[in-house]
Amino acid sequence: MPQAIDSGVALTWIERVSRGRRERTRDEVAIEEPLEIRVDGRALAVTMRTPGDDEDLAVGFLLGEGLITGADDVAGIGPTEELEANVVDVRTRRGLRRDPFDERRFHMTSSCGICGKGALEQVKLEAPDRSPRAPVSIDEAAVLGLPARARVAQKAFDRTGGIRATGLFETGGRLLALREDVGRHNAMDKAIGALVLDGGSGGVVGTIAYLSGRIGFELVQKAVMAGLGGIVAVGAPTSLAVALAEEHDLLMCGFVRDGSFNVYVGAERLAVE
Amino acid sequence: MPQAIDSGVALTWIERVSRGRRERTRDEVAIEEPLEIRVDGRALAVTMRTPGDDEDLAVGFLLGEGLITGADDVAGIGPTEELEANVVDVRTRRGLRRDPFDERRFHMTSSCGICGKGALEQVKLEAPDRSPRAPVSIDEAAVLGLPARARVAQKAFDRTGGIRATGLFETGGRLLALREDVGRHNAMDKAIGALVLDGGSGGVVGTIAYLSGRIGFELVQKAVMAGLGGIVAVGAPTSLAVALAEEHDLLMCGFVRDGSFNVYVGAERLAVE
Repeated sequence: MPQAIDSGVALTWIERVSRGRRERTRDEVAIEEPLEIRVDGRALAVTMRTPGDDEDLAVGFLLGEGLITGADDVAGIGPTEELEANVVDVRTRRGLRRDPFDERRFHMTSSCGICGKGALEQVKLEAPDRSPRAPVSIDEAAVLGLPARARVAQKAFDRTGGIRATGLFETGGRLLALREDVGRHNAMDKAIGALVLDGGSGGVVGTIAYLSGRIGFELVQKAVMAGLGGIVAVGAPTSLAVALAEEHDLLMCGFVRDGSFNVYVGAERLAVE
Repeated sequence: MPQAIDSGVALTWIERVSRGRRERTRDEVAIEEPLEIRVDGRALAVTMRTPGDDEDLAVGFLLGEGLITGADDVAGIGPTEELEANVVDVRTRRGLRRDPFDERRFHMTSSCGICGKGALEQVKLEAPDRSPRAPVSIDEAAVLGLPARARVAQKAFDRTGGIRATGLFETGGRLLALREDVGRHNAMDKAIGALVLDGGSGGVVGTIAYLSGRIGFELVQKAVMAGLGGIVAVGAPTSLAVALAEEHDLLMCGFVRDGSFNVYVGAERLAVE
């Protein structure tokens, strides 16, 4: 479990794998935790954020939603004594500019806990008994080969530079499905949905998700819920992503670039030649 | 307004600026549009996605939320005759595994329209009369200087590689506020909120937001709602981001790298020496 060293950064043990050599070392990851934004004591939204500047976040969010028009609408902000650290309460002078609870303006989300621990517990409760019978193993060459194999199928990325991809692979490196989307969560939903519709939900169990970007908590949650065996990504994981992967024995590799990568979870199941 | 050439990619006119030279050309951008996911006719969620594979997306989303456990739970999927293209309806065999409407599991979001046009209209209706009196101008050197000036303040990025940043700058290039977060929407909310709390909402009007990543619709919406003058980003914009910026005369530059960039909106207001 990554340990916070300041409000935004945590330390976690990794194995750095590079050209057949592996080294146990420590790595800094960005902290991700849920923040509940309340207005006059009423819960309005939950966002997965890096702790710090929570008052700024709440005010910017309310302004962006047209719920306040400026600092004049705000009487005060802050956690009160009874509130947890991951809650911020904005007290208004005369209520919000409109009632957000009247409107159908909500996204469903997987981040519903009030603290990181709450979010982890929630996934544990909900995760169906679909996970692979044994934790998945993979070898170094297969991990290193995923970006190039995925790239061949990433048609829209080459054209626009603005698209994220998720590829689902067998542990041997065979591509089963790849989907692209402006949203990385959508790309993962699409790839998982494609395999589920294709071959029943058994088709996704134990597969490895390759992500063209970073690894956030919600992506690990999707992987756990679908019974995937691991995640390999070009980018960095967050603290809560690592913690959730540890809890579910999900293999996790990040920064797969230029012949090397970091193993955040499951290093004992990675074969290096 | 970008014109779709297939389900995932649209063409838009840009000016490519490189070392004092500018060239009008066409560029491909990823299409972003809202999708409403319904279950047995009832609206459950809206997500901003790239059209295509919408059935996969809906099924993967429901699986990730623990609302279905596999393809067996699904009786059929698809738009019906009465539905718009940006709606997908999943018909279940025996309802969802639990009732998502019972739970407090919702994110507030700015993407509430059923089609891109609906989303654009919504912002127009809600945007307060706070925008700069005249569209903002900037010169080439100032645009090119933003990444380096922001980088100095991006402390967490250097350490983790997993953090997004938004910096708010005067058009002359002076940094007013920079915030980092695992979520790019949070980073922008924080930067805007910081200036609003610092100097009243007047402090953000007409400023330029520098984004360390891509430009999605919701980020442009936040910019419009706060009265910003422009967005300059390292990454690519989406189709709907460009359309919204056009509608609100928001200067928009993308792919600011290696001494060059693309101007998606407001090229006539960019001074090139």
